[in-house]
Amino acid sequence: MTEKAEVTPWEVSGDLQETDYSRIANQFGAKLIDESILKEIKEITGEIHPFLHYGIFFAHRDLDIILQNYRKGQPFYLYTGRGPSGNMHLGHLLPFMFTKWLQEKFNVDLLIQITDDEKYLFRDISEQEIGKLTRNNILDILSLGFKPDKTHIIVDTEQSGILYNQAVRVSRHITASTAKAVFGFTDSDSIGKYFFTSMQAVPAFLISALSGKNVRCLIPYAIDQDPHFKVARDVIPKLGYEKPSSIISKFIPSLKGSGKMSSSDMNSGIYLNDTPKEVRKKLMKYAFSGGRETAEQQRKYGANPDIDFAFNIYRMLEHDRKKIEDIYSRYKVGEILSGEMKQLAADTISAFLETLKPARELAEKNFSEFMFNADDFRDRY
Amino acid sequence: MTEKAEVTPWEVSGDLQETDYSRIANQFGAKLIDESILKEIKEITGEIHPFLHYGIFFAHRDLDIILQNYRKGQPFYLYTGRGPSGNMHLGHLLPFMFTKWLQEKFNVDLLIQITDDEKYLFRDISEQEIGKLTRNNILDILSLGFKPDKTHIIVDTEQSGILYNQAVRVSRHITASTAKAVFGFTDSDSIGKYFFTSMQAVPAFLISALSGKNVRCLIPYAIDQDPHFKVARDVIPKLGYEKPSSIISKFIPSLKGSGKMSSSDMNSGIYLNDTPKEVRKKLMKYAFSGGRETAEQQRKYGANPDIDFAFNIYRMLEHDRKKIEDIYSRYKVGEILSGEMKQLAADTISAFLETLKPARELAEKNFSEFMFNADDFRDRY
Repeated sequence: MTEKAEVTPWEVSGDLQETDYSRIANQFGAKLIDESILKEIKEITGEIHPFLHYGIFFAHRDLDIILQNYRKGQPFYLYTGRGPSGNMHLGHLLPFMFTKWLQEKFNVDLLIQITDDEKYLFRDISEQEIGKLTRNNILDILSLGFKPDKTHIIVDTEQSGILYNQAVRVSRHITASTAKAVFGFTDSDSIGKYFFTSMQAVPAFLISALSGKNVRCLIPYAIDQDPHFKVARDVIPKLGYEKPSSIISKFIPSLKGSGKMSSSDMNSGIYLNDTPKEVRKKLMKYAFSGGRETAEQQRKYGANPDIDFAFNIYRMLEHDRKKIEDIYSRYKVGEILSGEMKQLAADTISAFLETLKPARELAEKNFSEFMFNADDFRDRY
Repeated sequence: MTEKAEVTPWEVSGDLQETDYSRIANQFGAKLIDESILKEIKEITGEIHPFLHYGIFFAHRDLDIILQNYRKGQPFYLYTGRGPSGNMHLGHLLPFMFTKWLQEKFNVDLLIQITDDEKYLFRDISEQEIGKLTRNNILDILSLGFKPDKTHIIVDTEQSGILYNQAVRVSRHITASTAKAVFGFTDSDSIGKYFFTSMQAVPAFLISALSGKNVRCLIPYAIDQDPHFKVARDVIPKLGYEKPSSIISKFIPSLKGSGKMSSSDMNSGIYLNDTPKEVRKKLMKYAFSGGRETAEQQRKYGANPDIDFAFNIYRMLEHDRKKIEDIYSRYKVGEILSGEMKQLAADTISAFLETLKPARELAEKNFSEFMFNADDFRDRY
């Protein structure tokens, strides 16, 4: 890995601060989401999603083109994904909430790629285990209540017939040298790892390839996935399709602080099937706090809510923005103690997790309706 | 490419002589086909195919195991292939004659992989052109009269769903470093090229993977394909399947001499749809001759039939071994002139090409019957 590549899809060096995010976005060639973009989104959708308002989705590539074209009546579609390397944390699920919001507000198709082949290549997990995780992860995602007619889940090993033929076209335009520079590979890495980015590029032009029309793609993803899509944006125009646009998030903070949530540490995140008791316990015991050492100091000096895990999660799940502002300022000045903040967050999280159950059960029944079917796209655009 | 890698699937440096073949087989770790192997084949099949008799198929890996197991009643299957980079020469077709003989004598399934993805990755040919060549090449192969119930053609891009999932398993065990050493790749080569060998490895264990039984595979191929199968033999046991065995041929000499026939030179080979007139003209004009400069010298000193293109092709197509021996000795002592040898070869070739037509027409009608169908293998062994 070159010294500068602190963020690749498989490794993030150190905790990232606000300034790092701007610098990395800049370094990667992405633009920060500014007031004019927010204004345009609000004009189209009627609101600014909290994840935009709070800068969780903070950068983009060519999102302005997507919005301008949309206003002119030109359709686009959404594409995002998940590598099934473990059970899903709350931190893994939250970006899908934002994607669902985009899907509903713009009324567009959404492809969700489940990269089970990637996990087989990059992690020491058996095929059997990946199979189980794949189904569970899909159900976790669908527990947010995605609509089956516009949501199309692509499991790589189930759609490999379609994906591989397109990936070969991508792979012809990426040298080993590029893969090394962008992903930090060495000669000791497997040829499967080298090839994989070609598979992840495919959904970014797949609807165009299947429909024969050039439909733009907007990809919401966390910044660690940017290397894949930077390469994809270089290659896809060479195949005759539009460059995909992107909207890029920071990492959802892990329980123990900032940085990427680790899948190997059971206590680094809140699982979707954690009981209210477990949620409370994890928050109390592990959650990184922006509060003071003692209740007395907290009352005197107040907390830093911006780096406080409990406050951050609360902010993402609470719909009432006035309530959030109220909690923010009271926590900041010391009227709310750390433990109280954690209790409030725990209650909000547990209530949220409860809301997921009916949609998950429904998705379990109608599982196949959500699965990608190439024939759906032959005449769709 | 390292200095020693004079033979890779995409490049052959210089003309190969008899001694080079032994040395390369040795260097690659293959064994020469010896009297004991030939004896065993004769005991099982009742005859020695001319391609074995004349040392065209000259080396092997673990062919003895295949034969021993076969005698004990353990089945195996055959796998060979073709990259559709151009129309097929006679030199491309002849190895399939030998494979057909093996298939019939041992009464076994044969997988024929058509690596259209490879040609897309390694050659500057459009997808459309490859599509046309693929169909034509398949018909050329089938013109030898393969039987549909035991012949299964795998076109990579048509079976990529099955192939990619298995290829990922292979690719996890091959490093970029190995690909560089074995195929002579550099960092400037595409990640598609790096990955491709994984696809070519799959048919060597596919029947085992599909049937759940461990069925051995015997792969007839020309020596330039050996790097692929050397790597495949290392990896396949790691996936829990038997190492494939192989039977390896020299290059069929090109019109202009030894070495690999070039697809880019229209006159380097005889095409299957060449008319008798064209065949005769190509032989007269281009065929590398083992004869002398003048008829007089030829009558006095005789020819060297072993390096003579016309004689070599004649030998491969003439069934009557006594006739061959007669021509050989008369040509060698100068009783037959170069032009006469060429005329005899031209007549034999044209007669042979004529025999291909009915089977080709039949294959065109029943094309789909020859195509690989995974379901055929679930309960076949």
